Amino acid sequence: MLKPEILDPQGQAVQRALPRLGFEGISDVRQGKRFELEVDGPVDDAALARIRELAESFLANTVIENFDVKVEDLPGAPGDAPAATVTAGEAK
Amino acid sequence: MLKPEILDPQGQAVQRALPRLGFEGISDVRQGKRFELEVDGPVDDAALARIRELAESFLANTVIENFDVKVEDLPGAPGDAPAATVTAGEAK
Repeated sequence: MLKPEILDPQGQAVQRALPRLGFEGISDVRQGKRFELEVDGPVDDAALARIRELAESFLANTVIENFDVKVEDLPGAPGDAPAATVTAGEAK
Repeated sequence: MLKPEILDPQGQAVQRALPRLGFEGISDVRQGKRFELEVDGPVDDAALARIRELAESFLANTVIENFDVKVEDLPGAPGDAPAATVTAGEAK
């Protein structure tokens, strides 16, 4: 997600449209990106460290974005292969 | 996120670039959107139902995207206001 101090025109446009569409009570909307990475083999600390490096150097623009890496089970995958989810900049 | 049967050229481009950049062992990459909604008042079942309706009718394109709604605490907000996170189509 964009850092809190960075203007998010897309999120603002969504927020301003909501009352018109009948949805009240949403005080802020921020829009961002999300990546789902399917990992060969175990998602251990070493794999997570590499994915964090990958997210920082390649998926996120760390000048304007925060990011977070989470591990989730992937229900659709054979043998419930684990997947790392990178939200390119979840608010921290 | 895009439904599994929908082609994701952005994710594929990322996946194909990874070995070149020195990151091996990632078998799939999918790219999607994520919205963070800050909610006035409590995020109870009624609020979540409305947000789910909002996500389905407005934030996600349900023809090609799955979505999921999650509740997270928002550390930066005054009084730790709860926030609903809509990932426009997390794989289910």
